[in-house]
Amino acid sequence: MKRSLDVCLTPEFLHLYELENKTVIIVDILRATSCMTTAFAHGVKEILPVATLAECRNLKQKHNCLAAAEREGQQAEGFDFGNSPLAYTNGVLEGKMLAMTTTNGTKAISMSQRAREVLIGSFLNKNTLVQYLFRGLSDVLIVCAGWKGKVNLEDTLFAGALAEALSDVFLLADDSGIVAKELYNIAKDNLKEFLKESSHFKRLKNLGIDADIDFCLKEDVYEVLPILKEGKLVNHSIETQSSSF
Amino acid sequence: MKRSLDVCLTPEFLHLYELENKTVIIVDILRATSCMTTAFAHGVKEILPVATLAECRNLKQKHNCLAAAEREGQQAEGFDFGNSPLAYTNGVLEGKMLAMTTTNGTKAISMSQRAREVLIGSFLNKNTLVQYLFRGLSDVLIVCAGWKGKVNLEDTLFAGALAEALSDVFLLADDSGIVAKELYNIAKDNLKEFLKESSHFKRLKNLGIDADIDFCLKEDVYEVLPILKEGKLVNHSIETQSSSF
Repeated sequence: MKRSLDVCLTPEFLHLYELENKTVIIVDILRATSCMTTAFAHGVKEILPVATLAECRNLKQKHNCLAAAEREGQQAEGFDFGNSPLAYTNGVLEGKMLAMTTTNGTKAISMSQRAREVLIGSFLNKNTLVQYLFRGLSDVLIVCAGWKGKVNLEDTLFAGALAEALSDVFLLADDSGIVAKELYNIAKDNLKEFLKESSHFKRLKNLGIDADIDFCLKEDVYEVLPILKEGKLVNHSIETQSSSF
Repeated sequence: MKRSLDVCLTPEFLHLYELENKTVIIVDILRATSCMTTAFAHGVKEILPVATLAECRNLKQKHNCLAAAEREGQQAEGFDFGNSPLAYTNGVLEGKMLAMTTTNGTKAISMSQRAREVLIGSFLNKNTLVQYLFRGLSDVLIVCAGWKGKVNLEDTLFAGALAEALSDVFLLADDSGIVAKELYNIAKDNLKEFLKESSHFKRLKNLGIDADIDFCLKEDVYEVLPILKEGKLVNHSIETQSSSF
């Protein structure tokens, strides 16, 4: 029997899904989960995702660690990083701990903690994630971070990309998965062009971070798989190469 | 300046939208809003949409009116109608009052009552609805009834059909509208074929009501426009031929 794959289009829906026996994939393409993937590819030891600026500031002080904070698409004052993945590539994270809070992505993580396991997905580590899910035994729920509770196009497209890649071994549980997969199939040849009408694209465009968007839409750049362990994200591929389920 | 058009993919999202100054379109293609449209085309005087079976039963007793109730896709015991639009075409509703409760559609209506105006949309009265919205001045929010809080394909497709038809005079406010419109554009040449993988289609198929599905996907069969007035649905085209806004 095929395993089940479901897509929760925003965290507003999470209460409608059973998470306990599921492998949950958190998706926030522009840009939280793309940043996390990039940070692990550039040697960060662990990331502590938190929901509020205050928690993030406290962790920075308590552990004397680096800290990243984004609100309304921009770096919050008093932090070392914002939400630009390109800033995570300069080697400064090597072996370090990073506290992190973003508008949507870290909130989605904290809301999903009751799942069997929580993984971080982005186009950048798509194939590593897909290979891991192929080897697993659990049903899968993709949780799109969305934008302030609402559906966004880029997370829906990545959910569709996963649904498409996993279609041989997973059965789509509900209509959200069909919506995402069909959408990805019409957009896949030029994701950026397709995204141009989206609300988030326009928001980020106004912030002048076109290079970030190009980067976040690249597939299979990194072979890392961030996974949540006791409230911290670590790189699964360093811990063990095979699924524990 | 173009008016704004937004799509709320399920009532679970309604708290994220401002309704007060909006024209809200309730959409429950399979089958509540298709039934309501059909009932008005066949002479029903007014429909009292209620959320629970108990309320529906009470109204039937209090007003000695006809009553329709559907749960899990089937007619509930002790009521005159279920949720099959074909049952509304036999003339028995002419001049009558009908109390009605369905799994998703009537719930979406009761959650939207704070809107400036609430209209009922279906493929069956699509053009009448579109013409009315062209003439109006308000921003528009399409509220898909979904299935028990989750997104469904058929309501999303109809939202996309409206977004497409209204694109000359409305601006899509958010990504949900883009998702719906793109999806409709790939599905429009054969809606039924596209819906075959959907969860609701499979549910209804198992109930043996294929003729209902064919009927609910027909465009522009009726020139009626159900509108909510003081908690009751009446036929707007009888009341007045032009928008009050």
